[in-house]
Amino acid sequence: MEEVAAMVRKYVFGNPIDTESVVKEFPVEKGNVPYFEVAINEKTMKLSMAANDKVYGLGETVRGINKRGFRYTSNCVDDHVHTEDKSSLYAAQNFFVYWGSDKRFGMFVDTPGKVSFDIGDREINTFEIDLEDFDANIYVIDGDSIMDIVRRFRGIIGKSYIPPKWAFGFGQSRWGYMNEQDVRDVVDNYDKQDMPLEAVYLDIDYMENYKDFTVNKERFPAFKEFVEEMKGRGIHLIPIIDAGVKIEDGYDVYEEGVREGYFVKKENGENLVAAVWPGKVHFPDFLNEKARNWFGNKYKFLLDQGIDGFWNDMNEPAIFYTEDHLKEVFEEIKVLEGQNLDVLSFFKFQGLVEGLSNNAEDYKRFYHDYKGQKIRHDKVHNIYGYNMTRAAGEAFERLCPDKKILMFSRASYIGMHRYGGVWTGDNQTWWSHLLLNIQQMPGLNMCGFLYCGADTGGFWGDTTEDLLMRWTQFSIFTPLFRNHSLKDTRNQEYYRFTNKKDFRNLLRLRYALIPYLYDQFTKAAVEDDMLFKPLCFEYPEDEMAYEVEDQLFVGDSIMVAPVYRQNSVGRYVYLPETMKMVRFRSPEDYDEEVLGKGNHYIKAAINELLVFVREGKKLPLAGPANRTGDINEKDMIYITGPHCC
Amino acid sequence: MEEVAAMVRKYVFGNPIDTESVVKEFPVEKGNVPYFEVAINEKTMKLSMAANDKVYGLGETVRGINKRGFRYTSNCVDDHVHTEDKSSLYAAQNFFVYWGSDKRFGMFVDTPGKVSFDIGDREINTFEIDLEDFDANIYVIDGDSIMDIVRRFRGIIGKSYIPPKWAFGFGQSRWGYMNEQDVRDVVDNYDKQDMPLEAVYLDIDYMENYKDFTVNKERFPAFKEFVEEMKGRGIHLIPIIDAGVKIEDGYDVYEEGVREGYFVKKENGENLVAAVWPGKVHFPDFLNEKARNWFGNKYKFLLDQGIDGFWNDMNEPAIFYTEDHLKEVFEEIKVLEGQNLDVLSFFKFQGLVEGLSNNAEDYKRFYHDYKGQKIRHDKVHNIYGYNMTRAAGEAFERLCPDKKILMFSRASYIGMHRYGGVWTGDNQTWWSHLLLNIQQMPGLNMCGFLYCGADTGGFWGDTTEDLLMRWTQFSIFTPLFRNHSLKDTRNQEYYRFTNKKDFRNLLRLRYALIPYLYDQFTKAAVEDDMLFKPLCFEYPEDEMAYEVEDQLFVGDSIMVAPVYRQNSVGRYVYLPETMKMVRFRSPEDYDEEVLGKGNHYIKAAINELLVFVREGKKLPLAGPANRTGDINEKDMIYITGPHCC
Repeated sequence: MEEVAAMVRKYVFGNPIDTESVVKEFPVEKGNVPYFEVAINEKTMKLSMAANDKVYGLGETVRGINKRGFRYTSNCVDDHVHTEDKSSLYAAQNFFVYWGSDKRFGMFVDTPGKVSFDIGDREINTFEIDLEDFDANIYVIDGDSIMDIVRRFRGIIGKSYIPPKWAFGFGQSRWGYMNEQDVRDVVDNYDKQDMPLEAVYLDIDYMENYKDFTVNKERFPAFKEFVEEMKGRGIHLIPIIDAGVKIEDGYDVYEEGVREGYFVKKENGENLVAAVWPGKVHFPDFLNEKARNWFGNKYKFLLDQGIDGFWNDMNEPAIFYTEDHLKEVFEEIKVLEGQNLDVLSFFKFQGLVEGLSNNAEDYKRFYHDYKGQKIRHDKVHNIYGYNMTRAAGEAFERLCPDKKILMFSRASYIGMHRYGGVWTGDNQTWWSHLLLNIQQMPGLNMCGFLYCGADTGGFWGDTTEDLLMRWTQFSIFTPLFRNHSLKDTRNQEYYRFTNKKDFRNLLRLRYALIPYLYDQFTKAAVEDDMLFKPLCFEYPEDEMAYEVEDQLFVGDSIMVAPVYRQNSVGRYVYLPETMKMVRFRSPEDYDEEVLGKGNHYIKAAINELLVFVREGKKLPLAGPANRTGDINEKDMIYITGPHCC
Repeated sequence: MEEVAAMVRKYVFGNPIDTESVVKEFPVEKGNVPYFEVAINEKTMKLSMAANDKVYGLGETVRGINKRGFRYTSNCVDDHVHTEDKSSLYAAQNFFVYWGSDKRFGMFVDTPGKVSFDIGDREINTFEIDLEDFDANIYVIDGDSIMDIVRRFRGIIGKSYIPPKWAFGFGQSRWGYMNEQDVRDVVDNYDKQDMPLEAVYLDIDYMENYKDFTVNKERFPAFKEFVEEMKGRGIHLIPIIDAGVKIEDGYDVYEEGVREGYFVKKENGENLVAAVWPGKVHFPDFLNEKARNWFGNKYKFLLDQGIDGFWNDMNEPAIFYTEDHLKEVFEEIKVLEGQNLDVLSFFKFQGLVEGLSNNAEDYKRFYHDYKGQKIRHDKVHNIYGYNMTRAAGEAFERLCPDKKILMFSRASYIGMHRYGGVWTGDNQTWWSHLLLNIQQMPGLNMCGFLYCGADTGGFWGDTTEDLLMRWTQFSIFTPLFRNHSLKDTRNQEYYRFTNKKDFRNLLRLRYALIPYLYDQFTKAAVEDDMLFKPLCFEYPEDEMAYEVEDQLFVGDSIMVAPVYRQNSVGRYVYLPETMKMVRFRSPEDYDEEVLGKGNHYIKAAINELLVFVREGKKLPLAGPANRTGDINEKDMIYITGPHCC
């Protein structure tokens, strides 16, 4: 370990807030940050890039695997339209690897405030990092290969969260299951179609008026018994927990939080009033250790009823509006109303109203109590969701130390990877978001987030059968495999479509793969490795490997090459080594062919997916099961790669 | 011609409004529309698709070349966020070719109202056409090949618009050139960098308070002289014309329109008051022949000052708000203000304000006088922009019959292709929009729109040097080649970037290609052919040709395969025949290699583009020129394809 530590150098700008992302102590280096030219005010670091230098990492962001050519801003935000121009998504994961012709290193910019990474956006060959505040811990990590650097970085941030094995089962979700009968119907239908299912997610409607740690008694009159009933059928119920706590007299969470001073406060000391799903809410101050412990303990209400998995949502935090801001806008509208609106004032009017939600200025209206210090929210914005999930993770350790609980979150920051996974948030029913899902996995893995996945089929909008089928063909490889959709969109449970048999076969294939996936996942977590690797991470000397951004190694034995273009019945695949192509239609029905290193166009009909078994490796497939508990790991089939025993 | 006519059958639902899209007379068939099952109310036509049946056409729409798997709605709309989920863009072009295993035909659904084409969206194998109104002329076109069907269809809608040759030169545009000095600076900079340039576009700021057919006297104190000055330098100025006419006492266009009753009217006979760029406006009733003539004649104001090109904008028509609707919204807001907004009422509030613009209900608030009939706008919505451009095109015939005028439009409907081209509207600085640009070209060509192109580099958002370079590498093949961007975004004139030489070479290559492009364009217009063809249109027996949606034949001699992925330095290319690959860095600097039929991965650095010269064909390249008038067509170089003389 001595050698590893020596490869990590820590630099300090100003007086940084401790994010507790890094779990090891490092001496502070005296000299300049290497590779970059740092401005005197320590707000800007610049580096000149050679034409083919590459940058990898930054977690959950838009665009391709190589992050060059865009400006990314770490600023957790509730924005569901993940188009190419969005600098910020839900996560803030400030680790990257610079892989150039003469500069090769990793860097973690550890600061809970806004950071932007302009990687050749304004100027094609300039990499500029801008810190909104100058306070930051900067870790520079050297290594002989990308994977070397990644593993060293992971070594300083602590081990990744490992979920229970059943969390590798398939979960059906939808914002729109209104009551226990809706949930029962879903399970009945999956069972009726003999389709595997492991979990049903409960979106916000299970609660009483969207109040955390309540259950709506009309919709779920005997919740504990219902959880028990589902468990008897091998089904886990996974409720959502939102960051905002409804303001309502008599609601214990609200009243305790007010009494104990656990909510975030305005400059004047009053609790901030914002609106989210429950209407007016206060936000728990997850940065305050006491508040964190208190909120974490609240999960007990659901744990006690047999719940063993949760998803934390709206924890950027999302804000529909703040009470104060809304008042101001209504005042401004009154002024505008009387006027003969010209175009500019009309756009101002529209902008005022649209700008009520997730407004940057609102994040300056409230304060945290962090280690005894009063800190304005925007300075620590990016660690809010992290600390909500940490509240839960730490509580699970206290409340049920012997049991693994499923936990994943929407907002995140490096450090949170120790307490839970992430899903990539409210995506769209777009083919481009299937590709984005593929391309986001390595960046997330690099930052320690191994348990992750996207809303399969797309959350917003009406999915189509072909998109859902292609997406599922990738999602059966992601640790979190969930089909989720928005209220009032087309229903997208697998049993609703024309080609049910094809979907059943895909779900069955997932279950056949679970022993392999869970094994490889656990290994990656323990060894600070990645589950999803781009080709160039393993073949750094192969120029073509850098070109490929739509194929991934999944664990040690296989490479996947998903079809992600509508109406395509095949795709180009690059093999960096001789491999055995497996064209799966089901766990039992597949074609095999050994293909040489190089480029291939490989056919894959809508119900076929492509897996490539590596040289000297084998892919184990378990026999049929509709629940992870029923998987027979003793009776495995092995598909062997070329030159494998 | 007898034979051709026999292959086109006309069916009539109800009592359709004549769009004047089709220029030939056809007897009305008595029987049922073939191929489809038509519902009794004639609002729905259904067809069952086999798994690999394909659908091409529908003009300017999102997604790939094969339109299967989505629901397209013809409904011209001012929406600049052309994500995959947008059923409607600016255009309404209701012609498609169905190319299946046992059904092969073309269809033109000729109705000026809303039509939706659900091509396997709700149900994977069902093609359903829904007419909002049942009145429509349905043309069914048979043929032995896709191109056969396309040519027959084109034969019934009249010849495509042919612009002057200089319109194939490069045009620099930006909403943000405020005065003659800004324009002069652009021209100076292009000249200084020895970069070709043919035109500068004038966006709305050249006008006096956004009033059509006015010029701002402070910004352009001697407009005619300035036009002359620019013409002296070989530069055309191309002003924008918007659909809305500003309400302002003393403004002649407004006063004449009111006096003559040429504006669209509300139910009660008052002129509709809407707001667009000038603030409050009336909309000319382009469907009224007299109003059309009147408005067309107004272009004379600019023609007389030496202007010889125009772009018609905002003619869906775009509506920021209507006066009546805004009043209603303010009333509703008053009610909401007093309430303790819950989440639903808050979203209602946001929705009310957001919904003010381009609101479907507003299109039901006004009426046209079409051939003596009072018709509510929504029933004829899709032919409004068409008739604005027709107003101009017909006027040019009257005013300057011996001169070709450049004209293109944002909104369109089939029929408008006789009067002008289109640009694909306010796109985004997205790599996916470069691909969209490529994929939209064949659909537009099929519908008769040959003079077309996209805002190169992207209109909304900050472009990057690499995106602009890759985009330009495709745009140098589109008839309309314009670099255009939005106010307050990053400036994107070519001379502003690091690698000026590479951009100069691309512009020079465009000019070298103009003789070929203009020749092929004119031929396509005269022969009812397409300029941009997907591979499968020429190789219907080649299965792989159907898979390729990112390569196009451009004219008879070449195929292009643009690189459209960020950070890629190469791409897969499929050759349906032996071709000569030409890797251009400039018109003088290129690699040549004959490659066989099949798949290839071909390198293309950021400053290189790939052209493939076809078997037995040659690509002419003209010598260097910075204006089309300076192109020496006598001194051509020919790059020959395999087996060419």
